[in-house]
This record gives sequence, C-alpha cells and structure tokens, in this order.
Amino acid sequence: MDTHDLLAVSQRRHQHVERVLAVFFSDSHYRAKTLGAPYAALWETLERNASGGKRVRPRMVMAAYEALGGTDLDAAAHVGAAFELLHTALIVHDDVIDRDFVRRGGVNVSGRYRDIATTAGIPLPDAEHRGMSVAIIAGDLALFNAYRLIDRSGVDGILRTRLHDLLDEAMFVSAAGELYDVDFALRRASATGSGGGAGGGAGGPAELPTVDEILEMERLKTAVYSFETPLQAGAVLAGASAAAVAALGTFGRNIGIAYQVVDDLLGVFGDERDTGKTTLGDLREGKRTVLLAHAASRPEWAEVEGFIGSPDLTAAQAGRIREVLEKTGSRRFTEALARDFANRAWEALVDPELPDAAREEFRPVVASVLGRVR
Amino acid sequence: MDTHDLLAVSQRRHQHVERVLAVFFSDSHYRAKTLGAPYAALWETLERNASGGKRVRPRMVMAAYEALGGTDLDAAAHVGAAFELLHTALIVHDDVIDRDFVRRGGVNVSGRYRDIATTAGIPLPDAEHRGMSVAIIAGDLALFNAYRLIDRSGVDGILRTRLHDLLDEAMFVSAAGELYDVDFALRRASATGSGGGAGGGAGGPAELPTVDEILEMERLKTAVYSFETPLQAGAVLAGASAAAVAALGTFGRNIGIAYQVVDDLLGVFGDERDTGKTTLGDLREGKRTVLLAHAASRPEWAEVEGFIGSPDLTAAQAGRIREVLEKTGSRRFTEALARDFANRAWEALVDPELPDAAREEFRPVVASVLGRVR
Repeated sequence: MDTHDLLAVSQRRHQHVERVLAVFFSDSHYRAKTLGAPYAALWETLERNASGGKRVRPRMVMAAYEALGGTDLDAAAHVGAAFELLHTALIVHDDVIDRDFVRRGGVNVSGRYRDIATTAGIPLPDAEHRGMSVAIIAGDLALFNAYRLIDRSGVDGILRTRLHDLLDEAMFVSAAGELYDVDFALRRASATGSGGGAGGGAGGPAELPTVDEILEMERLKTAVYSFETPLQAGAVLAGASAAAVAALGTFGRNIGIAYQVVDDLLGVFGDERDTGKTTLGDLREGKRTVLLAHAASRPEWAEVEGFIGSPDLTAAQAGRIREVLEKTGSRRFTEALARDFANRAWEALVDPELPDAAREEFRPVVASVLGRVR
Repeated sequence: MDTHDLLAVSQRRHQHVERVLAVFFSDSHYRAKTLGAPYAALWETLERNASGGKRVRPRMVMAAYEALGGTDLDAAAHVGAAFELLHTALIVHDDVIDRDFVRRGGVNVSGRYRDIATTAGIPLPDAEHRGMSVAIIAGDLALFNAYRLIDRSGVDGILRTRLHDLLDEAMFVSAAGELYDVDFALRRASATGSGGGAGGGAGGPAELPTVDEILEMERLKTAVYSFETPLQAGAVLAGASAAAVAALGTFGRNIGIAYQVVDDLLGVFGDERDTGKTTLGDLREGKRTVLLAHAASRPEWAEVEGFIGSPDLTAAQAGRIREVLEKTGSRRFTEALARDFANRAWEALVDPELPDAAREEFRPVVASVLGRVR
C-alpha cells in the first residue's frame, strides 16, 4: 500500500466517524432544546470540546477492524465514536481535577462557562467554580452516552455484550489511573509543602512516585482506554480469534505506554514548532513523568528540584533542568524506555494469529513513535 | 392488603435490591483489587455512599412492576438497582458542585478523601480539592455502571433497549435540571454579590428564579429520574400497555414534584425530630425553593432577604424569616401547591388502563405526601 492509499483509507475512516458523531450531537442538541436553550447551548459546547482531537481511539478501532477483515465501516465507526466520547468525558473531568481552563489552545468547557460568568460580573472564584460545575455535568453526559453509541452500531446479542465489556474495562481501568494520578499530585504536595516551591518537606523525595509507579499509572490512565481496548474492540467486531484479540491488546498496551513516555519527553525536550505546545508547561505544572522520576533519585536533582511545579518557572531555569536531565542520564534512560516499549509492541504484531494486513496497518504507528524519539 | 402484608412485600423487594447491589459491589471490588489496594478502597467508599438511602427509585420500579403483574423480582431488582446507582452518581457529583462534604450525617466521598489528606498533613484547600477530585472519579464509576446493571437483569433485545432508553432519559433530563440549579445559584451570586450577605446587588431580586422556574428545575433535576422514569421502567418490564406506562409516568412526575415541594417546606418548617435534619440548613445554604421564590416578590421580604445564604444565620433570624413566610402567605401557597401536585398524581392513577393493584400500591405514597403537609 503506498502513501497515497494510506491517506485515502485514513480519510474514509475519519469521515465515517465524524458523521456518526455529528448525528449523535445533532440528535442530542435537538432533544436538549425541548428542555431549554441553555441546555442546548451546553450540548453545543460539549460538541466543540469533542472536536479538534486526533481521533486516536476511533482510528485504532477502525484500523484493527479493517486489518482483521471487517467490512461494515459504519458499525466500526459507531464503536470508534463510543471510545471517542469516553475520551471526551475523561478529559473534560480530568481538566476539572487539574483545574485547567484551556485545552488545545482554546477554552475548555470549564473555561467557557467561567468566562460567561465573569462577563456577567460574577467574581472569579465563583465563576471558576461555576465553570467546573458545568464541566462535571458535561463530562457526565459524554460518559453516559458512550454506551449508547455502541447500541446504535446495530450490533446485538453476545457481540454487543463483548463490546460493552471492553468499553467498561476501558473506563474501569482509566478511573484507577486517574485515582493514582491524583494521589501522586498529593504526595508531591505533601513532600514539598503546598503547591510546589522549595523542595524537600516532611516526607522527602522518597515519597515521590517511582519510575515503575508512573509507568503503571500511565498504562492505567491512558494506554488501556486509548489503545489496548479500542484495538480489541475493532478486532472483536471483525470476528477475530481470541488469540488475535489478545495479540492486538498486547500491541496496544505497549504502544500506548511508549506514546505516553514519548509525550513526557517531548513535553520537556520537544520542538515547540512540531508539538505545538510550550516546553515549559509540564515543568511549570509539576507533571509526574518518567523523565523526572528517574532524575529525582540522583544527587544532581537537588539543585533544580525546587523549580518543578513553579508557575513562574523561567526559560533559564527550564534550561538548567534540561542540563541536569542530560547529566543524570534521565533523558537517555527515558528514550531507551520508549524504544523498548515500541519494540515490545512490534513483537506482539509478529504473532502468527495476526494477518499481514495488521502488520502493514500498524507498522507506521510504531515507526511514528520511534521517529519521535531522538 | 393490610399493613402487615405491605411491610412484608416491601421487605421482600428491598432484600432483592440489596442483594443485587451487594453482588455488583463485591464483583467490582474484587476486580478493582487487581489494580491496587487504593482503588479497591475507593470502591468500598463508593459502596458505603450508595447505602443508607431510602431506595426510593428501586421501590418505584418494583412497585410498578408488581402492580402491573410482573413476577420476575430478580430482573426488576436489577433495573431498580440501576436507577439507584444513577442516583448515587448524581448525588456524589451534586455534592462536589455544592461543595458539600457531608451527607446523611456522615462524610461523603469528598469528605472521606479530604479527611485522609488532612490527616496526612496536606493543607486544607489541597485536601478539599483532592476529596472533590476523587468524588468526580467515584461518581463517574457509579454513572458508567448503571447501564451494566440493566444488562445483568437478563433482559435482552427490544425490551433491554427500552429500559436503556428510560435510564438514558432519566440522566439526560436530570443533567438539564442540575445545569439550571447551578445557574440559579449563580443568579443569586450575581444579584447579591459573592456568596450571599447583604441583599439587592446590581441585578436585583427580579433576576432571582420565579416559582415556575424552580418547579421546572425540581421536575428536571429530581422528579423525572426519581419517580417518572423508574415507574415507567417497572411498567415496561412488566409488559404493560403504552397507555398504562404513560399514566404511571404522569403519576410519577406529579408525585415527584409534590415530594420536592414538601421537602422544601420541611427544610424550613419541619420538625427536626421527624426529618432528622436542622431547619437552618436550607436557609444558611440559600437553597432555591418555591417557598422563598414566592416570598421574594413581596415587600415584607426586604427585611429578611439579607439573612438568606448566610452561613452564620442565627436561630432568631431563622425565626424571623419563618414569621415573614407566614405573613406573605408563602407557606400557605407552598402547602397548597404540594397538595395540588399530589392530587394531580392521584388523578393519573384513576386511568382505566391501570389495574386496581396500581391504585392500592400507590395510595400510601400519595397519602404520605399529603400527611407531611400541615
């Protein structure tokens, strides 16, 4: 398959998914209007927040489905859209938990409803709480409707139950990951005193999460619902064997972790022109990453530890942190880790239960992860 | 049926529902343990928060089911448990939105996780945010699993789809009600300045919600998911006619609104020994109720308006508010309104499509609402 064909395939799939989501949001909006204009407006905001993403999860569902011989693209698009709606719900609620009001360069649900309130003269703390309250409601709506998109796929009986089980697994596992992420943030607050700043409080660095704990959190929070279960759902829908479903799941888990590790790397060392986001954000926010967890156990770390999580972190301080991450070998270690998971992902694809089409389909995915590592 | 029989019926139904919920939580807990002890602990907290309620929604499902001739109590208990889990999700998230850390005399999910954090030495604002973050996750889990309990009922095909549609309707409508409740709280903040206190800000009382707006909000936020749709689900599961399902829905909508209006009355005029909660709570919190909305348009209101929503409201100030509510006729008006909705509910039961068993089953429900009005 040449590059032109790949693009055509990808666009065809993309259009199917967009159509399913457009119909779902149009139906919901119409239904919401009967309960009042402000409710209809909330659905419009939710739809805007559900668009503009890379549609990673629907792409995984559809790639697995077609690679394993499925031909009913409309059914696959519904299952893909279900995972996309779950994703929307999780990021809307994740933003509430992280007190973020911005996503993908624009305001998110919380930000939009905060801004409406401040414009109406509401004081900022009340306006922010209002924004977060509406975002909780919006996330609930997306979450609750994810199942319904599978119901709309036209699939019934035992197959529908298996797809429901996979969506359930995705949500069940990501909730555990979110819980651990919340706990890690708290350990940091407990170790360094409230909200970052001067390091080395009561608990000390020993209480910070280890590399293994962060990898497990990233697997639970993101890899399972973004890669492992969407791939399995596509395979199940295509009627694949249990062994093929399992192999794709293993591929998904590993490539998902590799993605997260690369994301963590690019968040500090990336080229802003490529990634479209500042390389100061993760450091200012004190994001728990493999990169920093590795460095935290080294003596050189003490010098820059206090900068992490400071909202006023300067470019010079970030530069100093990068130097330390090179010196401790943390950057090299993290790069090797990403490559290792990408290789394990590739090995899963070699399973004889999987057709060549699966290897063809997912080789570019592995290559793209490896290509993003220095 | 004498009182003794009624009690026996009620206990039998209750035990079925408790068993379904116990199995669900036990399964989930077992499954959560494989992802770590802290996640299993979250499921224990969620189970505790899902217990101790009056099980109003399962009772409605099962009463409608048996009144309309259904005999598979286990299937009905699963559908009832699904509505109960939806209820758990909604109150856990509602508490986050209201910044409440207590429910039914104990700490709720937010309160429990806040307390664990403060005990570990986390400063209060961070601990509260952590509590609320975990409560968002816990509510999501309850919400997402509500559908699954219907799947576990053993019902399939078109019947399962109709039950899913009713649960979907319950959630869809209550989200609108929650949105309007959030907006009403905000209008108050905008009319009186931040967080209550001295009344009569820029917008003035004209911006406060009217009696009709509050009735509609209470219908959307509570009556539909607590009475209307559970009753319809019980009837649908029993194979009732469309006319019987519609009549029970009308009954549920009206009795649900009557319940809310009575709750608002008892929140200010109730006997604490009966209701088990203080008659200062609603006033201190500035809860939007029919009672206060009616009084707000009267000149006498200006004298006490400033007390509403003040966390330091004294018993003497509450006494003064009660006097004004009597003088403006707001108490009488609200009592008449509750009786009116209860009567409309009763009229719906007279529908010839409904068997005598339905009237027998629901007469005590109407009587209990009327009995709580002076």
